[in-house]
Amino acid sequence: EVSNRDAQTSHGTAILPGLVDITSFTTSFDEFSTTTKKALAAGFTFNSFLPHTQEGATVTDFTSLVDAIDSAGSGAYTDYSVSIAATDNNAQSVADAAELAGGLYLPFQDLSNSHISAITAHFANWPTTKPIVTDAKTTDLASVLLLASLHNRSVHVTGVLSQEDLELIKMVKNKGLSVTCDVAVLALFLSRDELDYAFLPTKKDQEYLWENLADIDCFTIGVLPYLVAKATGKAATAGVGIAETIPLLLSAVKDGKLTIADIISKFHDEPCQIFKIPKQEAQVEIDLDRFAVIEDASYPEFINKLRLRGAIERVNLHGETSVLDGKVLVDSTIGKNEVIPRNRFASITSA
Amino acid sequence: EVSNRDAQTSHGTAILPGLVDITSFTTSFDEFSTTTKKALAAGFTFNSFLPHTQEGATVTDFTSLVDAIDSAGSGAYTDYSVSIAATDNNAQSVADAAELAGGLYLPFQDLSNSHISAITAHFANWPTTKPIVTDAKTTDLASVLLLASLHNRSVHVTGVLSQEDLELIKMVKNKGLSVTCDVAVLALFLSRDELDYAFLPTKKDQEYLWENLADIDCFTIGVLPYLVAKATGKAATAGVGIAETIPLLLSAVKDGKLTIADIISKFHDEPCQIFKIPKQEAQVEIDLDRFAVIEDASYPEFINKLRLRGAIERVNLHGETSVLDGKVLVDSTIGKNEVIPRNRFASITSA
Ligand SMILES: [Zn+2]
Ligand SMILES: [Zn+2]
Ligand SMILES: [Zn+2]
Ligand SMILES: [Zn+2]
Ligand SMILES: [Zn+2]
Ligand SMILES: [Zn+2]
Ligand SMILES: [Zn+2]
Ligand SMILES: [Zn+2]
Repeated sequence: EVSNRDAQTSHGTAILPGLVDITSFTTSFDEFSTTTKKALAAGFTFNSFLPHTQEGATVTDFTSLVDAIDSAGSGAYTDYSVSIAATDNNAQSVADAAELAGGLYLPFQDLSNSHISAITAHFANWPTTKPIVTDAKTTDLASVLLLASLHNRSVHVTGVLSQEDLELIKMVKNKGLSVTCDVAVLALFLSRDELDYAFLPTKKDQEYLWENLADIDCFTIGVLPYLVAKATGKAATAGVGIAETIPLLLSAVKDGKLTIADIISKFHDEPCQIFKIPKQEAQVEIDLDRFAVIEDASYPEFINKLRLRGAIERVNLHGETSVLDGKVLVDSTIGKNEVIPRNRFASITSA
Repeated sequence: EVSNRDAQTSHGTAILPGLVDITSFTTSFDEFSTTTKKALAAGFTFNSFLPHTQEGATVTDFTSLVDAIDSAGSGAYTDYSVSIAATDNNAQSVADAAELAGGLYLPFQDLSNSHISAITAHFANWPTTKPIVTDAKTTDLASVLLLASLHNRSVHVTGVLSQEDLELIKMVKNKGLSVTCDVAVLALFLSRDELDYAFLPTKKDQEYLWENLADIDCFTIGVLPYLVAKATGKAATAGVGIAETIPLLLSAVKDGKLTIADIISKFHDEPCQIFKIPKQEAQVEIDLDRFAVIEDASYPEFINKLRLRGAIERVNLHGETSVLDGKVLVDSTIGKNEVIPRNRFASITSA
């Protein structure tokens, strides 16, 4: 029902709601405009930005959060929110800024080795109406899940890479804990067989992710395309890899590994619900048969060979056609900072 | 009621049940005899041996467990059991040997970095009638506790060193999970202020341990005296530090920080229950006022200065006086390998 045949052109067209990336990455908050413009052209109408850029964790308190939102404010092509990063000792200060934040991010590589009390403080202080996201892996992941369980908190695990981590998440889900997760789309297509870096899954892990897609709540773009671009010596520009995301997924639809409904569920419905994204008036029309034009692939040698199809024909946002035939028609002031404030939350339902 | 004044000598005497060390360490299984002889002279009538010696994890399957029990068999002064160590891939093989083992030990320093599936396999295979012990710290500890919770297994955490770990254990206990823990006695007296090594608690952590003694189920001797002896360049002989254990605790009794009843609870009642130690006919009589003779202190420069009191006057084991005035009277064949076999367990209660 979401995909239909266009008799006159014999093109397949899919109409999707505006897509939502819950762990968007920009190389720098000065590149907000470039990043969101590429996102819009690629079908994404909402970006929930990570609190770190290529300079590391930059959003860790009220002031840096306001700065990030301000620098985005003048140049955002999509609606957006910015998350705030937990450190070993900012539990109170991030909780004070929670109302303005998209969510709380627990970045495990930045935290010190003995961070149980820090994480505990964050679970105790962060408002329950706002999401908590973590990139924790293996033992760190188990640790976060235990603390979430003890504090009866939901937690979203971003960028799952391994069978081991997904098994752990499945076990915890079966136990009744409210845990959700996402996989970065690129990790479903590029493995260590093609590019041997620890930030990519092994082929075996990748196969496990595909086989257990039902337990993966969301898709994300995340920081992975940037890491791949950087590792392969490509200029890691703002918004690298965004354009390949939907065409990659559509190639899996063509191969029967995925449905358009899965894409809508994992790139719109679930993200909106888990991240409490305010309802957006947004729609994306994709030509499934035309070749995708991917100007800024994460790893062109790999991506271009795939000859991916799926051109973004049209994006409607806020009642106007903002993208037509892949070209952005609007200016950069259409995007708004959208978070559901703490006090309003109870009465708002997300689309 | 456990301590009474002897009018004729004006000596205080305490009569305790035979003490139980649930994480006994021997430098080598060839030194079983020396180690258990020192343990008996120090008031310990049961030693549940760790599966590793100074050579590392040596008991990891049925054959090595039988070898350890055999080499102990000819020279044990105390009753004993030997635990078996988990590795990344021996879950089935240790489960097959479980009937002969004192318990399963999860040694985190020996396990690989991504061991969630290994630990999961152990929790799934190890019989519920036998204890599981771990030395996991910080994030690894949280990970084990999560897996224990998911598998509804009891777990005993040995050698707690830090406020952070004890807080985590307390949180999990409050959540209703069956977790118990012990602290090595030496860690209650020697801190990094005196000797700056990571295997000792900071002064602040040590104070927290004292303040939260009610949440610490057991005392142990453990591997700590050996580590201290080795670090300070002392010959780390078999049984080093055992003799100082009870005199150290008695000094705390004198200071009002502990009662004799606490010692009985944490060095007999709780260990017997948690480790399902078969009932022993054993008693220890301690002269509280006489200076302790500590021949083999872990850290003589520190221990000797304390001028510790508490001489072991008499130990009764198996119906005979095996120690008198600190001298072992019996020969090395009195100790028996005592484990409660799986099939007999349901009908046996421990003393
Ligand atoms: Zn068309
Ligand atoms: Zn909007
Ligand atoms: Zn960590
Ligand atoms: Zn929506
Ligand atoms: Zn006396
Ligand atoms: Zn570990
Ligand atoms: Zn016996
Ligand atoms: Zn007893």
